[in-house]
Amino acid sequence: MKELKQNEAVTLASPLPFVLVTANDENERPNIIGISWVTITSWNPWLFIISVAPGRYSHKCIEHSGEFVINYPPESLAKAAWQCSTKSGKKVDKFKEFGIEAVPALKVKPPRIKGSTVCIECKVVDSFTTGDHTVFVGEAVSASGDTGNLRHQYCVHYTKLVSLDNEGNGDFDLVFK
Amino acid sequence: MKELKQNEAVTLASPLPFVLVTANDENERPNIIGISWVTITSWNPWLFIISVAPGRYSHKCIEHSGEFVINYPPESLAKAAWQCSTKSGKKVDKFKEFGIEAVPALKVKPPRIKGSTVCIECKVVDSFTTGDHTVFVGEAVSASGDTGNLRHQYCVHYTKLVSLDNEGNGDFDLVFK
Repeated sequence: MKELKQNEAVTLASPLPFVLVTANDENERPNIIGISWVTITSWNPWLFIISVAPGRYSHKCIEHSGEFVINYPPESLAKAAWQCSTKSGKKVDKFKEFGIEAVPALKVKPPRIKGSTVCIECKVVDSFTTGDHTVFVGEAVSASGDTGNLRHQYCVHYTKLVSLDNEGNGDFDLVFK
Repeated sequence: MKELKQNEAVTLASPLPFVLVTANDENERPNIIGISWVTITSWNPWLFIISVAPGRYSHKCIEHSGEFVINYPPESLAKAAWQCSTKSGKKVDKFKEFGIEAVPALKVKPPRIKGSTVCIECKVVDSFTTGDHTVFVGEAVSASGDTGNLRHQYCVHYTKLVSLDNEGNGDFDLVFK
């Protein structure tokens, strides 16, 4: 086995899950951030962890509000999901800019993204610093989804998104990069 | 969007990455644990986090040794990777039992798994409790891999493994469940 550089290793270990996390700023204006560094970390209580760089606008939003929603974007939102990583929410309303429709969440203030395969509403219960990122630990207080949209997004090391259903079957014609 | 139970939500959000983590026990005997709750959390330093339940033998191994290797098992090890979750390393040598070949790591004591698409050697730099699991934060001190084996495993909510290459292309004939 040959040695790999960081970039090569992450490319080979792709694709990674890709989610759109919504959180409200201090004016209750919702923002969206695309995140690949997400995982479940506990069954009971049901906890998720996401890693967010301190410089990101969503970092401020999550710190302020203590709530976020993890949305698994459907295939129909692949292009919009990709575009979410191209601009900062400080200046742009990503919902309007990229045609993403917000739906009120059931138990938290940040909205869900309409059509998502799965939406996990979280309340922050802990956070800690890991290197150049902050890990937010969110307790899942509600789960919902549009079960007609089985295909959601996976990220190939920040070069493109691919759509896979929950069995891993893909649509490789529809790729954004 | 309809409300989902925990089980339904995790199934719909599948597949998740699936790795085999190796760690040595107090007698320097290596063990293997299959983990889906893994993610990068920092670029610089390069950090990974894995979540391990305190009751697992590998929890003891990682606590003892402070080192582990994250192996992305190739398609050829799909069956063995699946079997790793069926027995405890307390009583069984999973390498022998499931025909998994160990290769010395470059910078840590636990071995790499031969043929892995990617092997990330980690030294534990932090850990914390998240609900019913422990998060171990590992600094990646070496990355290597068998770049001839692009297809590695993804887990469909603990019901089966599927093989995808690093672009998300799958082989759906070879599935273990």
